[in-house]
Amino acid sequence: MMSDISYENLIAEKIGEEIFDFAAEIYPICRSITGRGVRETLRAINAHINLEVHEVPTGTAVFDWVIPREWNIRDAYVKNERGEKVLDFARSNLHVMSYSVPVRQRISLTELKQHIYTLPDQPDLIPYRTSYYAEKWAFCMPHRLLENLKDETYEVVIDSTLTEGSLTYGEYLHRGETEDEFLLSAHVCHPSLANDNCSGIALLTHLAKRMAKLRTRYSYRFLFAPGTIGAIAWLARNEGRCQRIKHGLVISMVGDGGGPTYKKSRRGNSPIDRAVVHTLCHSGLTPTILEFSPYGYDERQYCSPGFNLPVGLFQRSKFGEIPEYHTSADNLDFIAPNHLALSYHLVAKTIDVVESDMVYCNTMPKCEPQLGRRGLYGAVGGDKHAAAGNMAMLWVLNLSDGMHSLLDIAERANLPFAVIREAALLLHRGGLLKPCGDVNSSTT
Amino acid sequence: MMSDISYENLIAEKIGEEIFDFAAEIYPICRSITGRGVRETLRAINAHINLEVHEVPTGTAVFDWVIPREWNIRDAYVKNERGEKVLDFARSNLHVMSYSVPVRQRISLTELKQHIYTLPDQPDLIPYRTSYYAEKWAFCMPHRLLENLKDETYEVVIDSTLTEGSLTYGEYLHRGETEDEFLLSAHVCHPSLANDNCSGIALLTHLAKRMAKLRTRYSYRFLFAPGTIGAIAWLARNEGRCQRIKHGLVISMVGDGGGPTYKKSRRGNSPIDRAVVHTLCHSGLTPTILEFSPYGYDERQYCSPGFNLPVGLFQRSKFGEIPEYHTSADNLDFIAPNHLALSYHLVAKTIDVVESDMVYCNTMPKCEPQLGRRGLYGAVGGDKHAAAGNMAMLWVLNLSDGMHSLLDIAERANLPFAVIREAALLLHRGGLLKPCGDVNSSTT
Amino acid sequence: MMSDISYENLIAEKIGEEIFDFAAEIYPICRSITGRGVRETLRAINAHINLEVHEVPTGTAVFDWVIPREWNIRDAYVKNERGEKVLDFARSNLHVMSYSVPVRQRISLTELKQHIYTLPDQPDLIPYRTSYYAEKWAFCMPHRLLENLKDETYEVVIDSTLTEGSLTYGEYLHRGETEDEFLLSAHVCHPSLANDNCSGIALLTHLAKRMAKLRTRYSYRFLFAPGTIGAIAWLARNEGRCQRIKHGLVISMVGDGGGPTYKKSRRGNSPIDRAVVHTLCHSGLTPTILEFSPYGYDERQYCSPGFNLPVGLFQRSKFGEIPEYHTSADNLDFIAPNHLALSYHLVAKTIDVVESDMVYCNTMPKCEPQLGRRGLYGAVGGDKHAAAGNMAMLWVLNLSDGMHSLLDIAERANLPFAVIREAALLLHRGGLLKPCGDVNSSTT
Repeated sequence: MMSDISYENLIAEKIGEEIFDFAAEIYPICRSITGRGVRETLRAINAHINLEVHEVPTGTAVFDWVIPREWNIRDAYVKNERGEKVLDFARSNLHVMSYSVPVRQRISLTELKQHIYTLPDQPDLIPYRTSYYAEKWAFCMPHRLLENLKDETYEVVIDSTLTEGSLTYGEYLHRGETEDEFLLSAHVCHPSLANDNCSGIALLTHLAKRMAKLRTRYSYRFLFAPGTIGAIAWLARNEGRCQRIKHGLVISMVGDGGGPTYKKSRRGNSPIDRAVVHTLCHSGLTPTILEFSPYGYDERQYCSPGFNLPVGLFQRSKFGEIPEYHTSADNLDFIAPNHLALSYHLVAKTIDVVESDMVYCNTMPKCEPQLGRRGLYGAVGGDKHAAAGNMAMLWVLNLSDGMHSLLDIAERANLPFAVIREAALLLHRGGLLKPCGDVNSSTT
Repeated sequence: MMSDISYENLIAEKIGEEIFDFAAEIYPICRSITGRGVRETLRAINAHINLEVHEVPTGTAVFDWVIPREWNIRDAYVKNERGEKVLDFARSNLHVMSYSVPVRQRISLTELKQHIYTLPDQPDLIPYRTSYYAEKWAFCMPHRLLENLKDETYEVVIDSTLTEGSLTYGEYLHRGETEDEFLLSAHVCHPSLANDNCSGIALLTHLAKRMAKLRTRYSYRFLFAPGTIGAIAWLARNEGRCQRIKHGLVISMVGDGGGPTYKKSRRGNSPIDRAVVHTLCHSGLTPTILEFSPYGYDERQYCSPGFNLPVGLFQRSKFGEIPEYHTSADNLDFIAPNHLALSYHLVAKTIDVVESDMVYCNTMPKCEPQLGRRGLYGAVGGDKHAAAGNMAMLWVLNLSDGMHSLLDIAERANLPFAVIREAALLLHRGGLLKPCGDVNSSTT
Repeated sequence: MMSDISYENLIAEKIGEEIFDFAAEIYPICRSITGRGVRETLRAINAHINLEVHEVPTGTAVFDWVIPREWNIRDAYVKNERGEKVLDFARSNLHVMSYSVPVRQRISLTELKQHIYTLPDQPDLIPYRTSYYAEKWAFCMPHRLLENLKDETYEVVIDSTLTEGSLTYGEYLHRGETEDEFLLSAHVCHPSLANDNCSGIALLTHLAKRMAKLRTRYSYRFLFAPGTIGAIAWLARNEGRCQRIKHGLVISMVGDGGGPTYKKSRRGNSPIDRAVVHTLCHSGLTPTILEFSPYGYDERQYCSPGFNLPVGLFQRSKFGEIPEYHTSADNLDFIAPNHLALSYHLVAKTIDVVESDMVYCNTMPKCEPQLGRRGLYGAVGGDKHAAAGNMAMLWVLNLSDGMHSLLDIAERANLPFAVIREAALLLHRGGLLKPCGDVNSSTT
């Protein structure tokens, strides 16, 4: 079903460059959990896929939360006594703490310092800071710059607004043969941070664009929403739909060269967990597989105990474990087309496993069937190497007893899913297998 | 509930010295499985806690056993031809094999040697030997002393009595809110061996003394009984009560600097097993955790298949694995206040886990509740370190689905129980948790 | 029951020499999956045990297979232009690919080479090749010999016949107290390969011969059949009987000095799997334990999903992992009496475990019974070493609660089965145990 997922094809088709270019396009936008930046980002996605955009008004209750006022910002700077801008929002939207209330005043360096975040250990980088729910204002700057500021009076301006408005998210549904859904979710609330999460937004956009052309078993829901409050708003408005979600992945930080990293869903052994782990372990890479923990991205909400959805987190480097994390070093130089292409490939391969997994029954379960007679087996026995290529067929025949899916068999045989599936297709064609039950019928 | 269990407080309160002093007080007494030594020991305990003392008459059947005759000893010695005492019970009660029948005769060195135990590999130490159920007499002495004995005639005297009498044990019950019991058991049958088990007797005496002032959920039964036959007698006389025992620990050899060592109950994964393992693994020490085996102390009886009680064994060094074991080197120099204080601390922390463990339900199970609004979360996001302190709260919220107790959560989060409990108390106070079932309701 | 299985006794009785001599006797016979070689082999076995021989006619359908025509061969050679036999079947029956169709023609070296198998990496050895189901002819020779052949015309002769006939197998049933069966199976289709499987045929023949004199709980079925098609034919003709098979072993390659190797049955944790693993792990050797895989010997058929019998594979070296495998180096020099004796010992010990395993109930389950009073325990306590010898008794008493068999206890105690059984017999004799249920009653 996912016909285009071989890594070689993807490289040939320059999928990495496509994703990178889109990430670069949305990188400059100043996003937050509400406001024009999110809308502009969703418009850019809409140029590729037919996105359904939702506005949730300020004040709407979503479970324990309330949609906050909408934040927008036009400009911000700090000027010294000579009128020189020592800090300028126009140069980096990280310079202003997200959701800073408006300010316009003249203050001493001592006062200013109470409103400045720096990273003393990474003195050339601007940190990324937010204060969504406490009314504050602050600037973020390189520590080296702060140290050079003279003891004089500064003019500080943050030309922002906090007004009644709405929170915005977008979703795209690719309809498959069934209403069972596979949720793919990326947060769209971070400003100019390339890996976190322009990379994830761009990867999902192009995955959706390609899947639109494919027939699939599952329906695929692509959700582009602000982190935490956006996911919570979506869950609150789609509570009844959640039982359809059979698999899900949160996609973030997929443009760097680390990892791959997979954090399992709260269930720990759901089909998506097994499919990702299988795919990564047969990727030739050295993946990091993490048990679920309640800290991270929006899997926190999807895996809250009242939902407990089978949704894991796919990343390259693990969040928080790289020096670039939540700093101005997470820029376009930090991500690369080849990393994005590999991330795409791994996600697509995982989807392919989930799409293709099924339970067959061996139609000749008593003793082995005679593969040779059907042209399925090397006709000359006795060769000590001949058997290797037939192992996948033997495993599929031996375990297709109605209780093992192809993924079960791949795991037990320690062979790549694609090899097992290919063997199953050959055997099915040869009349030795018949489908005998949806893999989900037992798990839902 | 156990308000005084922090190690710092215990050290400040000199708990180690208290326990050591009591161990030193009872160390000189010549105990055996019956007789005046046991009664004297129980009287010493009674000076601290209101002990209920039981006498079980000689000849009473207790399961497969019969209470033996009572053994008492006044004096014993070996004199050479010059009338010099080459061995004198007055100098060490280990010199006489426990339950030796009376003897008064003159014998050759050759004959004498047939009644002498030594430790050739530890030539300066007196071994500890008993013969409760075979009528014999013997002396125990340093091997070096034996080698120096001349080939002459010796006068051997053991002024002991074996008469109708009784076996004595004592128990103290601290009543808690429920009749569910936590059994704490120490053997009181060894003579002058400081670690085995003056240490355990003294630790439990002072633990009982302190618990007497506390309100607890469980009732705590402290049992001071002779090893094997004493535990068997207690079980035979309290068979109907055993179903109340939800947790238990045998306490022995808790004054040396080794271990800590925990041998699991026969069940292997009962709450007491998990509580001790959790406590020891978060102690910063390097504990040894042993699976159950049917050799050791009175857990052998409590874990016999007809009872199968959830009772484990807590020790410092493992019995039998230190050179001082069952020799005169197990004296007051071998135990120390700081070791006793640490042992007390570990036992008390374990009790604290068992006392406090419970199941909460998240009152806002759908998505995360907004902790910040309740002052439970750092209001400024985006800091890469801020989250660490909130992990315990997130774990408690995520797993409080009615199926996980606080200990379950502490295990899964790999955080100390006290940290998880503190988070639960904060969340409970904030209305985000409600108690939803006794942890025992599912296990009893 | 297996009174003669101690390794020392077996060596004294020269069991290894007995087995070796029989393997040597049948080594020269040219066996295939049908034909006179199999019959001659079964006649040799019949000289030791009363074998029931079955003929299954060509054309008989057995599950997905059909019994092929019978193959026999009288002679074969390759002659050069000078009339010299450069290859002669009379010197090694490996020289002709098994089931080669008859041929008699003069051909060029180039044509000849299309019908020759060699092992370039092992240039002095003749490979073993078969083509049972594709009509072909071929010779097998040392690669060095092939390289020396001159570019001339050769006379090639294979004087074989492929005719209507039958497939032959033999079986021997040792009747035990019950109709529950233990299947022991060896393939009889390989020509002059000593280890694979003259060794297995000979071991089972002499095992059957010795068991004939013993009273056993299980009935033992010894099956000597051609690989794959023979096992399939037996299963097709005995389908209704299969439910009686409680345990089984395929025996092959048991004469070399490697391993021992055990490949588990498809069930993975059936009693035979546990019995073999236990026996091998307490053998003092360094066994290789393999999970089931659907490639190997006739366990492939016994463990097909429609049967899923508890049948594992016992070998010394693992098939395919030694350079001698399926070459002329697998000759009588490759096997040895001492290796065969050890293999016999391990199989017999495994049978002994399965025969003796049972569930006892402790008649005194409340507290320990007083072993000393019954002469079952060292009467003098306090010795730090005395306990070791009593551990097996303590384990048996502690776990004989009706839910643990002797093998369960041996596994948990990490003691050899024979030690546990001896303890159980002593305790049974002492009235402390009573039999309480067949180990199979819970597993069948």
